Amino acid sequence: MADSKPLFSLDGDPMAAEALLRDVFGIVVDEVIRKGTSASEKVCEWKEPEELKQLLDLELRSQGEASEQILARCREVIRYSVKTCHPHFFNQLFSGLDPHALAGRIVTESLNTSQYTYEIAPVFVLMEEEVLKKLRALVGWSSGDGVFCPGGSISNMYAVNLARYQRYPDCKQRGLRALPPLALFTSKECHYSIKKGAAFLGLGTNSVRVVKTDERGKMVPEDLERQISLAEAEGAVPFLVSATSGTTVLGAFDPLNAIADVCQRLGLWLHVDAAWGGSVLLSQTHRHLLDGIQRADSVAWNPHKLLTAGLQCSALLLRDTSNLLRRCHGSQASYLFQQDKFYDVALDTGDKVVQCGRRVDCLKLWLMWKAQGGQGLERRVDQAFALAWYLVEELKKREGFELVMEPEFVNVCFWFVPPSLRGKQESPDYSERLAKVAPVLKERMVKEGSMMISYQPHGTRGNFFRMVVANPALTRADMDFLLNELERLGRDL
Amino acid sequence: MADSKPLFSLDGDPMAAEALLRDVFGIVVDEVIRKGTSASEKVCEWKEPEELKQLLDLELRSQGEASEQILARCREVIRYSVKTCHPHFFNQLFSGLDPHALAGRIVTESLNTSQYTYEIAPVFVLMEEEVLKKLRALVGWSSGDGVFCPGGSISNMYAVNLARYQRYPDCKQRGLRALPPLALFTSKECHYSIKKGAAFLGLGTNSVRVVKTDERGKMVPEDLERQISLAEAEGAVPFLVSATSGTTVLGAFDPLNAIADVCQRLGLWLHVDAAWGGSVLLSQTHRHLLDGIQRADSVAWNPHKLLTAGLQCSALLLRDTSNLLRRCHGSQASYLFQQDKFYDVALDTGDKVVQCGRRVDCLKLWLMWKAQGGQGLERRVDQAFALAWYLVEELKKREGFELVMEPEFVNVCFWFVPPSLRGKQESPDYSERLAKVAPVLKERMVKEGSMMISYQPHGTRGNFFRMVVANPALTRADMDFLLNELERLGRDL
Repeated sequence: MADSKPLFSLDGDPMAAEALLRDVFGIVVDEVIRKGTSASEKVCEWKEPEELKQLLDLELRSQGEASEQILARCREVIRYSVKTCHPHFFNQLFSGLDPHALAGRIVTESLNTSQYTYEIAPVFVLMEEEVLKKLRALVGWSSGDGVFCPGGSISNMYAVNLARYQRYPDCKQRGLRALPPLALFTSKECHYSIKKGAAFLGLGTNSVRVVKTDERGKMVPEDLERQISLAEAEGAVPFLVSATSGTTVLGAFDPLNAIADVCQRLGLWLHVDAAWGGSVLLSQTHRHLLDGIQRADSVAWNPHKLLTAGLQCSALLLRDTSNLLRRCHGSQASYLFQQDKFYDVALDTGDKVVQCGRRVDCLKLWLMWKAQGGQGLERRVDQAFALAWYLVEELKKREGFELVMEPEFVNVCFWFVPPSLRGKQESPDYSERLAKVAPVLKERMVKEGSMMISYQPHGTRGNFFRMVVANPALTRADMDFLLNELERLGRDL
Repeated sequence: MADSKPLFSLDGDPMAAEALLRDVFGIVVDEVIRKGTSASEKVCEWKEPEELKQLLDLELRSQGEASEQILARCREVIRYSVKTCHPHFFNQLFSGLDPHALAGRIVTESLNTSQYTYEIAPVFVLMEEEVLKKLRALVGWSSGDGVFCPGGSISNMYAVNLARYQRYPDCKQRGLRALPPLALFTSKECHYSIKKGAAFLGLGTNSVRVVKTDERGKMVPEDLERQISLAEAEGAVPFLVSATSGTTVLGAFDPLNAIADVCQRLGLWLHVDAAWGGSVLLSQTHRHLLDGIQRADSVAWNPHKLLTAGLQCSALLLRDTSNLLRRCHGSQASYLFQQDKFYDVALDTGDKVVQCGRRVDCLKLWLMWKAQGGQGLERRVDQAFALAWYLVEELKKREGFELVMEPEFVNVCFWFVPPSLRGKQESPDYSERLAKVAPVLKERMVKEGSMMISYQPHGTRGNFFRMVVANPALTRADMDFLLNELERLGRDL
C-alpha cells in the first residue's frame, strides 16, 4: 500500500460516499455476519503483536488513500479481529450477534446524535425513558428513574455517588472532607469496579469493606452485619451495600432479601450490581435468583451481556422519584439547557449525568425487544440455562473434567484434568500442575483459532476454565464441541 | 402495528439475519446518507412529545414483531430523528457525516468487542496506541500515554484524578479525607464538566476556583496567580490548572504559555481541555492558537467534534511515561488480566481505565485518517476557519446582525436584530427584548425543520446565536442560507 494514490476526498460527493459505504457493508455481511458466525470458520487468527503491526500498517500519514485501499483495510481489520459473534467464542460475558440489535446500532451510528436534549434527540429521549421503564418494571418498580451509562463500572459508580449525595447533599459542593469517613460493603466476589469506583470517587479503596461469601460465592448476611459493626466501631459511617446478582467468575447471586433486611434496619442504600445477572429477570423460571431486588435503591443491569444488545448497553435503574439524579449531577449549563425553550425542558435529560455528550444506547435494545418480544428474550435466557445444565451433565460423564461447583447460572466453572494428572489427586504437586494446564490449552486454542474460553485462578483455587453460555445461537453441539476440543487440545498433557 | 404476527426469531437463521440487515442498511443509505445530508430536505421533523410517543408506539411487549414491522420502525426512528449530518444543522460542536468514519463505526459495531485485552481486541489495542501516538505527536510529545474515554467530561475527570494521585498516591487507598483540602483552577468560560467532575470525584465544586477571563473569554494569567495565592491563604493546596483550548460558547483559546509558566513555577499539573479546539493542531496555519500545549501534563481532545469522527471519540493524552494511568486506575483483576498469559500482558490496556468493558473508539478515526490523510483533515480545519470568516464578513454587510465579538475560531456568536428593534439600541428595554428574539426564531426554525442553530445567554449578555462551522461538507452557500433564513424567520419581529 505504499503507492498511495492522490488524496481522494468524499466531502461533498454523496454518490461516492454511498458507494463506499455499500462496499463496506458488503464486507461486513460477508466477513462478520456470515463467516464470523460460522462454526466452520476460525474464532480468531492469532498474530504476535509485532507481526500484526506490520500486517496492518497502522501508521497515520499525511497522504490519503483511495477507496480500494480503504476497503482492503476494512477486510484486514476484520480478518485479524476476534469474532465475538462466533459460536465458539466463550471468553467473555458477552458473545453472539443479534441482527436486530446490530441494526439498531447501525441506525444509531448513522444518526450520530447525543442523548442530552429533546431538541436534538427527540426519539431517543422518549425511547430511553420507555426502555428504562420496562427494565424497572422487571425489577418490580412502577415508578423511578434511571439512565444508560457507558458500562457497568460507571453505573456502579453512579450508585455510590447518589447514595452519598442522598445522605450528605453537602458533599456536592464541599467534597468528602466535609463528611465523616464513609464505609461501603460488598462481597469478596464482587466486580472489581466497586473498588475502582471508590478510588475514583475519592472515597479510597479502604472505604470498601469486604464481606465474606459462602462456598457458592454468595455474600454471607451475618458477616455483612459484623462488618458494619466493625466499621462503625472504627468510626466510619456505613452508607451503602453493593450486592451482586451474578458474580463475574462463579455466577453467584447474593441473598438479596436477607441483605435488604440489614439495609432496611440500618438505613443503608442497597445497590444491586446485576450487570451480569439482571437479564434473568426476564425468565419466569429463573428470576427467583434475584428475589428481593425490588427492595434495592439502585440496580445496574447490562443488556449487552446476556441479552446480546451490543457494547455498550448498561442501565442504572433507581427507585427514587425525587429527581435525585438531576439534583446530584446537574449543573444547569445555560448554553445547553436553556430554560426559555419552547418545550418542556424536563425532557432535556442530559443534566442527569456527569457526561455531557452521551451516546444513544437505547435503540439497539428497543429494536431487539420489539423484534423478539419479551417472550423471545425470555426463551433465550431459559435456553442459556438449559444449555449450561446440559454441559454440566455431559461434563460429569467424561473422565478428565472436574466441576468447581454446581452452577446456578450460566457460568460453568471446571478444570480440565489432562491424562497425565488423572488419578493423581493425592500427589503433593497436583494443584500446582493442574493450574498450569489452562494457560497451555488457552494458548493452543487461540493459536489454532478453534475456540476461546477464559480461565482464572480464584482464591485458593488454581486456574480453572469459566465457560459462559451467553450467545443465543448456541446449541448442544457447541457444548459437545467445547468438551471434545479441550480433550483434543490436552490429550498429550 | 397492532396486528403483530407471531414471533419471528432470527436466532440460528443467518440468511434471514442477512436479509434484515441488508434492508436496514438500504434504509440508512436512503434516509440518512442521501436524504439526511441533502439541503433540500428537512433537518428535523418536529413533533410534540406526546404526539411523538404515539407515532413511535414505544411500548415493549411480550410478543415479537415480524421483519416488515421492524423495518417500518427503523424508518420512523430515522424520520423523526434530527439529521445531525444535514448541512443546516449548526446546533452543536459536532455535525456532518464522514463516510469513512461511519464505515469504521459500522465495522466496530459488527465486531462488537471490548478494548480491554489484546486477547479479544488485538487489532484495536495496537490501533488505539498508534492513534494516540499520532495525536500526542501533534501536541508535541514524542512519548507519553493515553486512552480513549467515553466523552470529554470523563477525559477531564481522568486528568483531575491523575493529578491528585500523582501528588498524593495515598489517595487511592485512603481517599480524600487523608489529604489536605485541594484546589483546582479553571476559567469562568470553562466547560461545565470541570465542576461536575470535581463533585463526582469527591472534591466538591467548591474546590474549583474560577479565574477571570478577558473580553475575548481567555483566562487571565494574572488572575490565575491571584486565585492560587487566595486558595493557599485559605489553607487549600493548589494541584491543577485546567486551561481551555476552544471554549464552548465563544471558542476562546486560553494563553497556554503564560499559564504553563505559572504551573511550572508552582509545580501544578497543567491540563488542557482541548475537547473542542484540539483538532486545530492539524492546521499549520492555525495551530498557533494552542502554542504552549506541549507544556501540558494532560490534554483532552475530542475528534468527534471538529473532525467528524462520530460520537464518541475522546482522547485523553498524557505526557507521563511512568505508567501513571495504570498505577492510578489499575486493580489487577485476576479473572481478566491473568499474568500467566502467553503474550506480553502489557498489551492488556484495560487496567488503565476505570471502566471494565470499553468500546472501541479508535477505528473510526483511524480509517478516516487513512482515507483523508493528515493533509485532508488539515484542509477541513482550514476550510472551517475560512467559512467562519466568510460568514463574519457577510454578516457585517447586512443590517440586523450584530457580532458579539470577532471570532478567533469557528464559533461565530451574534445577535439577529429584528426590524422592530433596529436603531433602538438606546431604548431601556432593548437588551431585554433582543434576548427574546433567539428563542422565538429557534422555535420557528425547528417547527419548520429548516435549520438548527443554538443560542444561549452568556454572562450579562442576553440570548445570542452561536453558529458552529464544523461540518466538512459546508460551503459559502450554507453560510448565506443561514443569514437569509434568519432574516426570513424574523422579518415580522
